[in-house]
Amino acid sequence: MSQHSTLAPLPDLAKRTEKMIRWLASFGANPNGGVTRLLYTPSWLEAQSALAQKMEEIGLHVFFDDVGNLYGRLEANQQSSGSILTGSHVDTVKNGGKYDGAYGIIAGLIALQYLKDTYGPPRKHLEVVSLCEEEGSRFPYTYWGSGSITGTASYSQIQNLKDAQDIGFEKAMLDAGFGNGSHKPANRDDVLAFIELHIEQGAILEHEQKSIGIVEQIVGQKRYTVVLTGEANHAGTTPMALRKDALRGASQMVQYLMDSTDRTGAPLVATVGKFSIEPNIPNVIPNKVTFSVDVRHPSGTILDQFSEQFEQEFRNIAKERDLSIVIDKWMDARPVEMDIQLTNQAESICQNLGIPHKRMASGAGHDSQVFAPFCPTSLIFVPSHRGISHSPLEHTSINDLETGIKVLIELLYQLGYETEE
Amino acid sequence: MSQHSTLAPLPDLAKRTEKMIRWLASFGANPNGGVTRLLYTPSWLEAQSALAQKMEEIGLHVFFDDVGNLYGRLEANQQSSGSILTGSHVDTVKNGGKYDGAYGIIAGLIALQYLKDTYGPPRKHLEVVSLCEEEGSRFPYTYWGSGSITGTASYSQIQNLKDAQDIGFEKAMLDAGFGNGSHKPANRDDVLAFIELHIEQGAILEHEQKSIGIVEQIVGQKRYTVVLTGEANHAGTTPMALRKDALRGASQMVQYLMDSTDRTGAPLVATVGKFSIEPNIPNVIPNKVTFSVDVRHPSGTILDQFSEQFEQEFRNIAKERDLSIVIDKWMDARPVEMDIQLTNQAESICQNLGIPHKRMASGAGHDSQVFAPFCPTSLIFVPSHRGISHSPLEHTSINDLETGIKVLIELLYQLGYETEE
Repeated sequence: MSQHSTLAPLPDLAKRTEKMIRWLASFGANPNGGVTRLLYTPSWLEAQSALAQKMEEIGLHVFFDDVGNLYGRLEANQQSSGSILTGSHVDTVKNGGKYDGAYGIIAGLIALQYLKDTYGPPRKHLEVVSLCEEEGSRFPYTYWGSGSITGTASYSQIQNLKDAQDIGFEKAMLDAGFGNGSHKPANRDDVLAFIELHIEQGAILEHEQKSIGIVEQIVGQKRYTVVLTGEANHAGTTPMALRKDALRGASQMVQYLMDSTDRTGAPLVATVGKFSIEPNIPNVIPNKVTFSVDVRHPSGTILDQFSEQFEQEFRNIAKERDLSIVIDKWMDARPVEMDIQLTNQAESICQNLGIPHKRMASGAGHDSQVFAPFCPTSLIFVPSHRGISHSPLEHTSINDLETGIKVLIELLYQLGYETEE
Repeated sequence: MSQHSTLAPLPDLAKRTEKMIRWLASFGANPNGGVTRLLYTPSWLEAQSALAQKMEEIGLHVFFDDVGNLYGRLEANQQSSGSILTGSHVDTVKNGGKYDGAYGIIAGLIALQYLKDTYGPPRKHLEVVSLCEEEGSRFPYTYWGSGSITGTASYSQIQNLKDAQDIGFEKAMLDAGFGNGSHKPANRDDVLAFIELHIEQGAILEHEQKSIGIVEQIVGQKRYTVVLTGEANHAGTTPMALRKDALRGASQMVQYLMDSTDRTGAPLVATVGKFSIEPNIPNVIPNKVTFSVDVRHPSGTILDQFSEQFEQEFRNIAKERDLSIVIDKWMDARPVEMDIQLTNQAESICQNLGIPHKRMASGAGHDSQVFAPFCPTSLIFVPSHRGISHSPLEHTSINDLETGIKVLIELLYQLGYETEE
């Protein structure tokens, strides 16, 4: 640790972190260097079992809950009214990276081992949690792990869900040995705080040369599908003035959306990621364009105002170009605030340790947004090289991984050892 | 005919035209009302055979050439140094309309029958031709019929071409009974003029309430494939300023292309008909866009200037948005002029008959552009309802069909009966 740390030195942290990241990535490893660990699949089960064994070796009290969340508890040396949780999700997207989710679990393991070995039992239970699911990569359902703990998810919601191979969610869960009542119920009422260490999945920290991002909010997000309909016609024989060109209208809308996002300024982001046209023939004027819109901002008010504006402008452009338009807003997630006290505490730690850091918004969704309405929650980022994520190219430097774990240890120490009951 | 016609009256013209259009559309008829008559297929062969029989019935001298072009000749009453040809193509696109190509053949048949019955043998041979192929719908080759007559097409060019079922062009030709030397060679040196009556396939005539369009030029046309490459990244975590959004760049280019086409003004047309993005996922910034550009204008100079300009602007936009760009111009067809004397002659006929008409450019390609460098050529349009073509909805009113045939008869009369040797 740096000269400002209150803690004992951490020998070999970098080497151990690197080794454990590689070790966890071996479960579900793809030939191209990526990782595929979908919920309740063999590679997922192997990873959870191996993590459980590692937790045992460290001397933690290990248990699964009924949906497959895995806990390793460092028991308090006294009556503890609840537990401080740290961790992240063990599942990955298809052919994802080594760090997304995995880093938060590895960091929690290393932190608890260090704290146990150095300071013995804490005053409050400290638990590392390997959340069973966050990505929604196998079934069309996200945050199954954190949702089951906090009670926002329930078995009735997943009853009819199937994966791409037509296997039911419940059957997959039972086959993996969960959902049968043999483990503790997932829903908990004893969580005092949740601390999640995660890669940024963006390039802001790297760009600004910061090692730590302390998340203040997870952004609000709206998602749309826009369908424009015009008239297909011959590219050579239809004068410009007689056209109802759906692509021309759509291009104007994309232009407007991007330019007005720039004008409103950061941290507003807008993305058109899906875009298709019909009939898609070089010499036929497009009669139909379907595209997605994804807009995000930490302020719900700004997001609402901005969205109202571009929806109106889209309608104006459609009218001007003689196109019919259908705007379907199919997601409207409000921004979620992290705990202000934990945010301040994490910032103090960075200041004391001399770590370049930044308060920021998270543009991506995380388990922390499910925990935040339920218990004091803090989400801490380390940089992602070039912002690349959900890819075998996902990378965070070993120095940044180490720095993140140091901050986590300090925070868990303050919460678990120093705090008065 | 109107009171200004020099010709005898034409009884039942409307009814006979309608009947014959329906009759020819029965060969290759689709259940939805469309027509599919691809080169050398059974429906194509049936149509050519039925047309040959009809020509015989009318009393024309009937012959095929080696590639399958079908001729019906009204022989001159004296030594004729050559033939005046009229007609169009018998093949269709997949699920095309009843009028495209077919109308020009039917019109020629009716015109020759009328002239023969009314005035007897002409001073010059008059021939109706049912050209075997124009659309390029079965094999990736267009203007096979007119190209074989004029000598721009040859067997060596089609040697390695295959259709979607992997059947070779030559094999298909041989199986249909052509290409084996049993018919006259296709290449001719005795064509005095080519007159093509065709549907407009655009909405200009209908929009301006004209019954006849006299084509002065067939437009020049350039076709491009443009590929933009940026960087895929997370929609939530990548600030606008750090993006290399290929779709944003492409939208800006489409916008520029359309706006500058408007500024340059008619008859310039520009179309982006094919457009696809990668990875095409709602929450990922597009890293790649591939799109087509089709620009057409009757003036080669204006087309060159305009194209140079937009290519430059595309490169500027790519640079501004930090994208790499590849612009592949894979077609650069020069404009083709129709014969000025025939154009004037057709216009005089319209004036004399009191027919609302318009000199215009053809935005689509036609057999006439293959004949034009080879012999005096005239292309005459009748209106297409709503400009719809290559569709079962293709429609021209019976009045307009009738008017077109009247103009054709007058023109053939002047060329075949009145002209001095």
